[in-house]
Amino acid sequence: IIESVGEGVTDVAPGDHVLPVFTGECKECAHCKSAESNMCDLLRINTDRGVMIGDGKSRFSINGKPIYHFVGTSTFSEYTVMHVGCVAKINPQAPLDKVCVLSCGISTGLGASINVAKPPKGSTVAVFGLGAVGLAAAEGARIAGASRIIGVDLNPSRFEEARKFGCTEFVNPKDHNKPVQEVLAEMTNGGVDRSVECTGNINAMIQAFECVHDGWGVAVLVGVPHKDAEFKTHPMNFLNERTLKGTFFGNYKPRTDLPNVVELYMKKELEVEKFITHSVPFAEINKAFDLMA
Amino acid sequence: IIESVGEGVTDVAPGDHVLPVFTGECKECAHCKSAESNMCDLLRINTDRGVMIGDGKSRFSINGKPIYHFVGTSTFSEYTVMHVGCVAKINPQAPLDKVCVLSCGISTGLGASINVAKPPKGSTVAVFGLGAVGLAAAEGARIAGASRIIGVDLNPSRFEEARKFGCTEFVNPKDHNKPVQEVLAEMTNGGVDRSVECTGNINAMIQAFECVHDGWGVAVLVGVPHKDAEFKTHPMNFLNERTLKGTFFGNYKPRTDLPNVVELYMKKELEVEKFITHSVPFAEINKAFDLMA
Repeated sequence: IIESVGEGVTDVAPGDHVLPVFTGECKECAHCKSAESNMCDLLRINTDRGVMIGDGKSRFSINGKPIYHFVGTSTFSEYTVMHVGCVAKINPQAPLDKVCVLSCGISTGLGASINVAKPPKGSTVAVFGLGAVGLAAAEGARIAGASRIIGVDLNPSRFEEARKFGCTEFVNPKDHNKPVQEVLAEMTNGGVDRSVECTGNINAMIQAFECVHDGWGVAVLVGVPHKDAEFKTHPMNFLNERTLKGTFFGNYKPRTDLPNVVELYMKKELEVEKFITHSVPFAEINKAFDLMA
Repeated sequence: IIESVGEGVTDVAPGDHVLPVFTGECKECAHCKSAESNMCDLLRINTDRGVMIGDGKSRFSINGKPIYHFVGTSTFSEYTVMHVGCVAKINPQAPLDKVCVLSCGISTGLGASINVAKPPKGSTVAVFGLGAVGLAAAEGARIAGASRIIGVDLNPSRFEEARKFGCTEFVNPKDHNKPVQEVLAEMTNGGVDRSVECTGNINAMIQAFECVHDGWGVAVLVGVPHKDAEFKTHPMNFLNERTLKGTFFGNYKPRTDLPNVVELYMKKELEVEKFITHSVPFAEINKAFDLMA
């Protein structure tokens, strides 16, 4: 909830309900003006900045010493100071303790399916990695109307839970002694229509690309790779009319699009509650981190 | 021109003007039914078949010994026998000695731009390789409304000719001591909007992908790679919202789409004549091959 605004800020006002987002939307740069990109030149994620863009200073201090900002949001605090381009004004009816999870991972996976992979109705989608982002990708595939959603994970304990997010089938690569691309191709008469990679593991990225059907298959990369990772494949896999693309934050423009994601939840088309397994008071935040491990 | 048709053939009749195509369209398989693919399961290019699909026999012979068919067309002959799925019925007004070049390379490059890269009006397109396919890709980018078309080739003698096909600028990688991706990024404020790779060289493929702008850039592979080639890039190049896709025969479905390409020529939107540098009689076909070298 906006407490106060700085000079010149007119897009939000005290009392507005907002979601803080680690990536922003200035609405002026080439990326913000492109219908296809959300990677704002001014406000895209910057883990090193630590200060406000306007004056290069921090807004936090303790005993006179500056404390730096964290990815433009610093939301582990009761009050924070943010660039107006990094807050999305949302429906004030939305319960903030629920929709806050839409600021990051859930939207990333959801948008990867809905905005980028765009599975046609009745299509088959493979989701690599069934963590929160992968489950959101499955949820997005479900919302888009996919009829088969195949969850791929090395950890079979995730499979039962993933059914709630739309997964209809599962493949554990450890259960097979051939490449998972071949397993998926056999299950799907030549390959899946869409795949979404949510692990960041380079081998899973290559598998997610090579498992899509020739002619029309689209693979979408979401997981962040190791800095030394190298994507390798035979170029004929592209020539056979496969498409590979990556996405950042599910291609959602935070200020333009996040309010609509909140509306998806308000209309009960997106079930946010099932992503929330525990609620802990802020004072016990470290317990929450332990629960995620 | 159709001379006669076999039993059951109703789509073409004697006297129809047609283009023979090395890849077909059965109109029944999953590929033909998909709006996105032209890689017909039954009739896609097959350089090894050499016989008719129906009975597995050749229709040519000399002194009683069979002569095998060449990629389903065998068009270096006065008469040939083809599967009906590999002939596209076209406007009988079209001059056959001109539009015959639309059966292969010209459509491949043209469609790679128009159907697959889809450059928005006013965009910047890089074309790698200025042979016939690359020139057709430039022509396609011009028809689609691109405003800057940058030809990339190691052979500067091709540059002047390429202006006729819409190229506005040229880069010879040999003229620079940094990667051509960087040269193109500097010329275009961060990268081109679209690129089309028409050489088949694996390094050019990687360059063509890495030179597109983050956020919205799309690279299209057309050239056929060496069988041992390996496409390698850092996966962050995808995560930054770049797209890589390949195409076969410019994604044109031969029977459905080629007649419309011929119409583009009839309406003078596509200038086929400038692709034709020499005409030789059939008896001097070997001279024509020498001229291409």
